[in-house]
Amino acid sequence: MTSNPNWFTELSDSGTIFGLELTEAAKIHEEQTPFQKLEIYDTTTFGKLMTLDGCTMVTTRDNFVYHEMMSHPVLFSHPAPKRVCIIGGGDCGTLREVLKHPEVESAIQIDIDERVTRVSEMFFPELCESNNDPRATLAFEDGIAWINNAEPGSLDILIVDSTDPVGPGAVLYSEEFFRGCWRALGENGLLVQQSESPLVHAAKIIKPMHDTMRKAGFSDIQLHQFQQVCYPTGWWSCTIAAKSGSIAFTREATAQTLSFPTSYYNAEIHRGSAALPQFLKAILA
Amino acid sequence: MTSNPNWFTELSDSGTIFGLELTEAAKIHEEQTPFQKLEIYDTTTFGKLMTLDGCTMVTTRDNFVYHEMMSHPVLFSHPAPKRVCIIGGGDCGTLREVLKHPEVESAIQIDIDERVTRVSEMFFPELCESNNDPRATLAFEDGIAWINNAEPGSLDILIVDSTDPVGPGAVLYSEEFFRGCWRALGENGLLVQQSESPLVHAAKIIKPMHDTMRKAGFSDIQLHQFQQVCYPTGWWSCTIAAKSGSIAFTREATAQTLSFPTSYYNAEIHRGSAALPQFLKAILA
Repeated sequence: MTSNPNWFTELSDSGTIFGLELTEAAKIHEEQTPFQKLEIYDTTTFGKLMTLDGCTMVTTRDNFVYHEMMSHPVLFSHPAPKRVCIIGGGDCGTLREVLKHPEVESAIQIDIDERVTRVSEMFFPELCESNNDPRATLAFEDGIAWINNAEPGSLDILIVDSTDPVGPGAVLYSEEFFRGCWRALGENGLLVQQSESPLVHAAKIIKPMHDTMRKAGFSDIQLHQFQQVCYPTGWWSCTIAAKSGSIAFTREATAQTLSFPTSYYNAEIHRGSAALPQFLKAILA
Repeated sequence: MTSNPNWFTELSDSGTIFGLELTEAAKIHEEQTPFQKLEIYDTTTFGKLMTLDGCTMVTTRDNFVYHEMMSHPVLFSHPAPKRVCIIGGGDCGTLREVLKHPEVESAIQIDIDERVTRVSEMFFPELCESNNDPRATLAFEDGIAWINNAEPGSLDILIVDSTDPVGPGAVLYSEEFFRGCWRALGENGLLVQQSESPLVHAAKIIKPMHDTMRKAGFSDIQLHQFQQVCYPTGWWSCTIAAKSGSIAFTREATAQTLSFPTSYYNAEIHRGSAALPQFLKAILA
């Protein structure tokens, strides 16, 4: 069934394993950045694979789902998404999707590790094709400090394109961080953050995260589900939180006649991904 | 990260691997049936796992998604689903979901391998809890022959809960088989069949399958996506085909006030799972 004995495999703490078959080339890049071990593999069917400290971050084949779902639902929910900030997202795929929206006037991406971006430019050039957009700023510094120092009310959209809530990523799920996000957002401001697997993390991560967001001042919360094959269980989610008022599909008409190409997102997917299965409704109630 | 070196892993021809961590007990049952090798494993986080010839069929933890999506969308799309037939489905999980509908008067499950059902009764008793329902018939014979011999127009719903379209399963994706299904269905009859992974099988399996269904006489086709973690890529689908007319969410009002418990399905999920991502729309156009 497999022509090559080389596989990249990742064990998750949910008792599952996911792996991708590698070409003869196998690992094609490896470096220890000031922050983490960064590796690039060449797979037989998923294109390039980037891992950080052994955890799958992005593949050529399936990153479109994650990047589109981290950007378009939240941007089409805001009446006028002009000022966007991305915390993390060093592979630049989310930035590319954000800049597809003509309404966006400025988008700053703040990833602490510049090497993630530089290596992405080499191995995932398609994700970096908007890095030179005049509206884009690439900053390489601590995103949490940046948020805490941001001018209050200065952002319309804040996208936390972060790692898992373990180790250094744990602070991104804290009430203090969410308070900082709330403060940095303007009147109709929306936050979106990746929120792990509905099947295995609903009670342990998603529910506490939503409770913490509410404690930090967010007035409404909406979960979107999607398939992210290369992440543990392949069943993934992001969570949108509103600074005030309710989350609505505010610019649905614009989404129905998309002015730019997408591979995953459309208006029906926007509505459909917000439908929650019964078990998840019960846990999040 | 893992407490036990035992893992069940399945390589797929899409260049991916999925695995589940096993308890100390590891493999708890193994037999060669007249048709296939049947094994049961005990996993640390997904309960029991059944494999046939090494391929994952069902786990305790995530089978609810598949079984609910193979039954409720099609049953709530039919105005009066009284006579139901399930081809395959020997684990009896689909039968259980079908029999939750009070409108169903008879449901026959036709799996060629009686051992699948007998072993399910031992290790997945919750899936078999409706096997003694007076409306249920369990037949152990060739489902294709059964369909070909069925009285024309004798079924409202036909559920093909089958294996992959390789080897003995290939015939279940043939025009001849679909013609037999079309003939066996009544006026408002609906067929549903599992249709593999939208990410990796859209062009090679799903599109040809839809084309073949149309050639066989089916008038409308609707794909539903869902997450089936234990199947290759975890991104799965089923396809509903109408004998005549269009597929609609005919009994939406009933689905909105469900009279029975579900873990995954609800009316919003019904609509949401029918939303297709852009790339899939393009392939299936």
